[in-house]
This record gives sequence, structure tokens and C-alpha cells, in this order.
Amino acid sequence: MARERSWWGWGWADEAVHGAGLADLAARVAPFLPVDGDIAPVPDLAAVSLPPPRVRPPDSLAHLCTSRTRERAAHTYGKAYRDVVRTLRGDLATAPDLVARPGDEAEVAAILDWAGSTGVAVVPYGGGTSVVGGVELRDRARPWVSLDTGRLDGVVEIDAVSLAARVRAGTYGPAIEDGLRPHGLTLRHFPQSFEFSTLGGWIATRAGGHYATGYTHIDDLVQAVRAVTPIGVAQSARVPSSAAGPAPDRLWLGSEGTLGVVTEAWVRVRRRPRFTARATMTFTEYDDAVAATRDVAQSGLGPANCRLLDPTESALGAGVADGTSRLLLAFESADAPVDAALARATDIGQAHSGRSTSEETAREWRGSFLRAPYLRDGLARLGVVVETFETACTWSAFPALHAAVIQSVVSAGPAFAACRFTHVYPDGPAPYYTVYAAGRRGAEVEIWDGIKARVSEAILAQGGTITHHHAVGRDHRPWYDRERPEPFAVALRAAKAALDPYGILNPGVLIDP
Amino acid sequence: MARERSWWGWGWADEAVHGAGLADLAARVAPFLPVDGDIAPVPDLAAVSLPPPRVRPPDSLAHLCTSRTRERAAHTYGKAYRDVVRTLRGDLATAPDLVARPGDEAEVAAILDWAGSTGVAVVPYGGGTSVVGGVELRDRARPWVSLDTGRLDGVVEIDAVSLAARVRAGTYGPAIEDGLRPHGLTLRHFPQSFEFSTLGGWIATRAGGHYATGYTHIDDLVQAVRAVTPIGVAQSARVPSSAAGPAPDRLWLGSEGTLGVVTEAWVRVRRRPRFTARATMTFTEYDDAVAATRDVAQSGLGPANCRLLDPTESALGAGVADGTSRLLLAFESADAPVDAALARATDIGQAHSGRSTSEETAREWRGSFLRAPYLRDGLARLGVVVETFETACTWSAFPALHAAVIQSVVSAGPAFAACRFTHVYPDGPAPYYTVYAAGRRGAEVEIWDGIKARVSEAILAQGGTITHHHAVGRDHRPWYDRERPEPFAVALRAAKAALDPYGILNPGVLIDP
Repeated sequence: MARERSWWGWGWADEAVHGAGLADLAARVAPFLPVDGDIAPVPDLAAVSLPPPRVRPPDSLAHLCTSRTRERAAHTYGKAYRDVVRTLRGDLATAPDLVARPGDEAEVAAILDWAGSTGVAVVPYGGGTSVVGGVELRDRARPWVSLDTGRLDGVVEIDAVSLAARVRAGTYGPAIEDGLRPHGLTLRHFPQSFEFSTLGGWIATRAGGHYATGYTHIDDLVQAVRAVTPIGVAQSARVPSSAAGPAPDRLWLGSEGTLGVVTEAWVRVRRRPRFTARATMTFTEYDDAVAATRDVAQSGLGPANCRLLDPTESALGAGVADGTSRLLLAFESADAPVDAALARATDIGQAHSGRSTSEETAREWRGSFLRAPYLRDGLARLGVVVETFETACTWSAFPALHAAVIQSVVSAGPAFAACRFTHVYPDGPAPYYTVYAAGRRGAEVEIWDGIKARVSEAILAQGGTITHHHAVGRDHRPWYDRERPEPFAVALRAAKAALDPYGILNPGVLIDP
Repeated sequence: MARERSWWGWGWADEAVHGAGLADLAARVAPFLPVDGDIAPVPDLAAVSLPPPRVRPPDSLAHLCTSRTRERAAHTYGKAYRDVVRTLRGDLATAPDLVARPGDEAEVAAILDWAGSTGVAVVPYGGGTSVVGGVELRDRARPWVSLDTGRLDGVVEIDAVSLAARVRAGTYGPAIEDGLRPHGLTLRHFPQSFEFSTLGGWIATRAGGHYATGYTHIDDLVQAVRAVTPIGVAQSARVPSSAAGPAPDRLWLGSEGTLGVVTEAWVRVRRRPRFTARATMTFTEYDDAVAATRDVAQSGLGPANCRLLDPTESALGAGVADGTSRLLLAFESADAPVDAALARATDIGQAHSGRSTSEETAREWRGSFLRAPYLRDGLARLGVVVETFETACTWSAFPALHAAVIQSVVSAGPAFAACRFTHVYPDGPAPYYTVYAAGRRGAEVEIWDGIKARVSEAILAQGGTITHHHAVGRDHRPWYDRERPEPFAVALRAAKAALDPYGILNPGVLIDP
């Protein structure tokens, strides 16, 4: 039997925390945050009642569409904390009227064509792991279709000489790697959502991947994009680089389903690494750790991993309770040993009072990294508010930004935040925060939204971007609108009106009509 | 006395080839191409007669504008071969009516405002080194202003912690380095035009720079862009990376003056390299050399220089007349020695039958690289057709593309082409061709345009981009229009109409109204 995805929470259904696991989680959280002892039940799908679909597809498309309750419920939201809480509450009134699963580009075009003629909104859906409200529709008055790209899948062509592969947009992370592995190749793009997200979703949201330095975003791994828009198919040239006008692919990267449906892409792959070297360093002072990380980021050494855990993240994720910070370093190469690079990076760490330490904490941290979304869902059932947000800023802006963010979290009452750098650049880090706060039954979403608004204000005030790799969706719109240069907004609005003349694609995201 | 720029040809007036230098050049070329013995004279500026200016600026802007013959003549064209030939012919009928030199953003906005009200076209002009017809106006019926950004100059702010600098758009390459050097910093963006081109021009054209791998284009060195458009000022957030919608800076990168005037940018700088290592390798077979270069590009070693000269380029540029190819390799770092990386790269070369050789050819080649545009101008006066073009393609496409390009050059009658890779990527090289062909007095431009059309057809047919770093301008339009995905053209046209509602900015480039 195929393993089943959770319809209400993160990932695999059988990985959800339950029973004794929840009790253990409650016991671990209780010293820090109030826990009321209740456990919100997962709604019984058989008892879930959704509003009847308001639209019927034409007969020619009916075989691609479903209005089954489970499908509609599972496509109502993404996988943010606020999505899980709303689902646990049974708040599914904004479910899509239909879920459509086209199997080729002609079917995508036919769905867009029909939607354009009727005004039905179309929300492209890859793996549905959005944590920013990217795959829902909030306009309750408007019928909508969740366009699930899952059938547009497969690694369909490989150019081993040029290290490139043509991959259909609905292909999930593991299937991409499965398709490349027999050729000794890998994409090595591993967002935390890797198992449950798709290439098309990564492109639409400018996902952040495996590499801590260098080619951090899927943007850099894309050689050419193919997308179906309401006015036709766009296919960019398959070239390694170009100066032929503004880069066409950059319009799709970050378009979040507002301009078209990405159907496939040529991606840059690489030979599987044969050489790796890892180290973990401990720092008594966080400022020293930050300075060491900055020097490594500016050294040109290019570590594949360069993840700085602050003392709270070290404690929660890696079982280190002594107030120190941990820097996780890794180098890799398919060509030659990387020990010298690692040695140089650890020299840099030592120059900032860092000490090499056991790899145990790194292993433990990697385990909890993959487990984190399941734990979040468990905590949500326990009534604890727990969610993540992220940004990127210059090194010079970071200290004040970090202080302001932490302050805006703790000022919310019983609450605290852990920070790690997911990616680092010569000009600045990408700090990623996990917030834990006391919940109140029935008010969890409002509590989280309040915290999120405060931290978002702090981020913008201190020169950070509203998102380094989670995308904008609906949750980041107010701050995105302020971050975005107004003439660019004007240009994007004009482009949207030209590509999506009936305004059917993911309305409310990025731009208003 | 300040050194004087040539008004008719490349670079410094005092570097132009003349007298005995021209005779020597003629003798060197004669074995390969017919030379008629004439030398086209440089027109006497005092005798040049331009059409009278058709527009008069408002009094408030008059102090920013000039209609002096020398200024108008020098701003009539860029610096392509066809520009030099037309200037030598005295063909300056399309000279700008005015040359404007705003000193701040308010003055840029005032010029755009006035132009919008009168329909006068505005062509932004950085260093004027376009080789693709990017800074001229071909519509003879339309009055136009060449907007020279030269007064918007200077390195105005440095963030040494984040390795970033705020530089005004009209700053020339050497002035950027002069501003950074006292801080131990460098931009290390050295296009061949470095001395005579500006940051704004690099951004508008997506210039290719120093690094053969990795961050090859100015695109990657730009942290934030500021531009004045007819509808307002655009300023992007100063962050190292972001996933907040399609990247706003990518709209300015490659916009070629059609959407606004870039006025300044924060750029990513780095510490000056302290460690370098160089090697030159010789290959008997060009195919082996290509394979070696590909393996180095795919190794992850990241050489700063990885320039493959084919046998013709080796002969013409590096004095190597034995039919071998040369691979010029260099590594550099501000942090640590790079000898091991160089050793590994030369191992890769040896695995493809490459032999390490003297650095002499590399030095000679670098000398002729900087001298090449002056020699081109000399050859133009001798009646020889000589010009360059470039592309990028996948490694798998390269052999057929290269053969087709060479064939389309030699089929033009007495003509030949030299090839070098200026930049290499894991997925493909950026081949750069220099063409030498027999001229015919008075028909040089037509002969070149014929060759250019044939090679451009070959490039597109074989999967190359019409330009890797020279930009589109007016010369590449027909092929750019075919390379560009049509929905992207629609989006760009809509963006242009929204940002430049009166259609004054660089008309004819990238998009038609």
C-alpha cells in the first residue's frame, strides 16, 4: 500500500506525533510554556462537511477534476502553523470547489481557458507545502480550482555532457533524485520540504536549497523554464547564461502562480559528491560565532553547509544546554578531497575563539530538522503556538535586526525564539527563526498573526527582506508591498494584466488587479 | 592636461594606431586578406557638419545640455566596428540633437519629464562602448537627447563589514577601483571595456566581467539598484538574497535604457586577492582542449580565469603558430593559497593530453586583449572588416555550433574567425569570436552586416543565445525577438508601457511600442 500523505498536517500521515509522543512533547514544553493538558482532536474526515462546489467543469475536463471531500480538504490550505490550526478547528469553508489534475500542457491550457471564460480562480498547487498562504483563496465569494501539478511528473531527459536534466514541474524531490541517481547525477536541492514539494513549486517560490553558500536558491539551478500562461506557452532558451535583455526565467522565478503554470524546466545537475568533510564548532559567545561565520562566508571557501545555531537553537535542536552556539560546517566535491578547505574554515573559527567539537550535536540537529514540522503539528494540537519565519540582511544590519526580532517575540508574553543561519553570503546571513509562544484555545491564529506582524515590522525596519526563501504568498503581502520598489510593482501589475487578462491566476498573491 | 578620449574610435585618442603602426598592421594582415593600401583618414572635426539641433531644452535645463559638434559627434554611435566605419565615412547625420549631462537624480527626472512632454527620445549613455548599436537612434525623424551619466559618479559609501559599496552609475571602471583600493577592497569586474565603461552601463547591459566561472556577470555583483523612471524612482532593498516575488533588480539588469536610467547601485565587493596561481596549458587537439575546459568548469574548482584560445586565437593573439590551442588558467583568493586548486586543474588538463607551458603566451595574449580594439580601428582604416561577436551554449551543443559559425564566416569569401571562451559554466561555454574579412571601400558595413546575419542565424539554429555579454541593442533585435519567449515579450512590452508611458526611453531597443 502506498504511504499516505497527511490531509491535515505535515508530511506522511504515519509520522504524525500522537499518543505517548504527544504526552512526551507536552512534558518537554511545560517548563517553558503553559500547556493546558488538552489535545485538539484531528477532525474526522467522514464528518467534515464542505460547502457544495459552486462550479461544474465542462464535460471535456470533468475527468481531470474531483470534488471529493478529502481532496478538497487537503487542498484548502498550505502547511503553515495557521493552516494546521484552522484545519484542526474544522475551518474549511474556503475549500476549493474543485481539484484539477492535468496530465499534460494541453490540459493545463484547457483548464486556464475554461477558467478565463467563467472567472473561476485557478491556484497552482505543487506539493502544497506553502507556509505563507500561497495555495489558498481568501476571497470567499469566488469559486476556485486548485490546479495540482502532481501528474506532470518525471525526469524526462538528461544531457549528461552538459550536466542538465529536463524535469516536469510536478516531480517531487525524491523522484527527481531517483531519476538522476542511475546517471551518477544529483540536483542537490534539499529544502526542508524536499520530500513533499515539487520542482515547479520551488521555481514559483524561489526555494532555498542545500547549499549554504554560492548557488543557494533554485534560481541558480534553473537553466530554462517552460510555463503555460493564459495567452500561450513560454519556453526560454536552454543556455548557460545570457545578456539578451532582462532574464526571462527571472519572471517565473518567484511568480507564485500569478503569471502562469510552470510545467517543466531544464535544471543544472551535478555529479554526486565523492568527497565530504564535516566539522562542528562551539562558541561561548554568539557574537564570536557570528563573526566567524561571516569570515567563512567571505573567505571564498564555499562550504556546502555553514549553519550557525544560536544558543536557543542549539538547546532545542541539538541538545546543547550550556548556552553555547554551534557552527555546522561541511564541504563536498565530486572531484577532489575537501579536507584542506575544511581545515582552513576551522582555522577561521578558531581565530574567533571557536573550538572543534563532536559531530554528535550536528547529527542530532539534522534529525530534529527533519522532524521539526511533525513536532510543530503536535505542539499545535497541544495548544502551543509554534512557527518559523526567515529573512536575509547585511552583516552590518544583523545585530540590530536580531535584537529587534527577539525583542518583538519575547514582548508578546510567554514566548521565545531560536535562530539559525540557513544560508550565508559574503554580504550577509539568512537568519531563520523558530518561535514558541503560549497559545489560547481558539485564539492561536490571532496570537500568531500578532507576533508575525510585530516581527515583520522589525525586519523591515532593520533592513531585512520579508522572505529569504519562503516566498510572499498572502501572509507576507503587506510587508512585501512596502519592500518592493513601487515602479517594479507598476511593471509587475502591467505584466500580470497582459499575461493573465482575466485575472484568474492565484488572485491576491503579489499583486492586486 | 587630462588625457583625451577618441571621438571617432576606441578608447584614448593617443593610443590609436597611426603612421608606421598602420603600415606594420597592413604588412601583418596582407598574407591573409587583401589590403588595398589606402588608409581612410579620420575626419577633421572642424570640417564635420551636423544637422542643426531640432530641439531646444527649457531654460531650466539648458545648463545641462550641449549641442557642440564634438559632443554630438562623439555621442552619435557606440564603439562597434560599424560605428567606427560610419564615423570615418563622416556619416553622422543621426547625431543626437543634444547631449545632456545631469548631475543628480532630480536633473535626470527633469530631463525625462521634459522629454515626455515633447516626445523627444532619450538614450541613456554610460561610457558609450556599446558594440551592438545600443546608444544611437536610427529613427531619423525623431529628435533625441543622449543622456550622458558621466557626472553621476563616485564611490559614495562603503560597508566594509558586509563587503558592499554604493557607487553612482556614471562611475568608470578605474574610478570604482580607485575608490575601493584605499579600503583594501575591489569589485574585480573587468570587462574588456573596463577603462571606458561605467557601472550603470554594465548593469543596463548585463556586462560580463573578470571571473570566468561563478559570478561572471555584473548581475551577481549587484546588491541593490536605484533607477529613475518616467513614473518615479525605484530603489530595491539592500539584502544579500531574497525570495520576495520576482527579483526587482533583474528587471533593470539588461534593460538597456528602455525602462529607466540607473543612477546608482550597491555592489558586492571583496578583499583584494593576496594569493594567485596561474598556468597555461597547450593542447594539440582542440577537441581535447574543449573537453579539458569542460571538466575544469564542472569540477567545482572555480578558477578566476579559464580562457581557452583556439588555434587561430592562439596564433593571432598569443603568437603561437603551431596549430595548438592554449588554456589560460588562474586562481585567486584573498584568504588562502590556491596552488592546490591550480594543481588539480592542471591534472585535469593533463588527463586530456594537455601540457603545461610557459606563461609567455598568456602574457602576450593579455597584452593583445587590451590592444585589440585599437588594432580593430586601425584595420578599419585599412579597409579590413574586423569585428567580434559572442554567444553561450551548452557543452553538448558547442561542437555543432562552433562548426556552423566558422562555416558561415569562411563561406563569406576571404574571411576567417578566431575563437576563445571568455567564460565557462558547468553547463556550457561562452565562445567569443573575432572575425577578419576582406573589405571593400564603402561597403564595409554591408559586408559585416551580411556576415553578422549569417553567424546569428547559425547561432540561433544551433541553440546559442544571441549574446552572452554584449547585450541586444539594435543590432541583435531580429534574433533576440526570436530567442525571447513570446509571453515574456508581452510582459516586457506591458512593463515598458507602464514605466515609460510616453515611449521616450531608447526607442527601438528590446521592444517596439
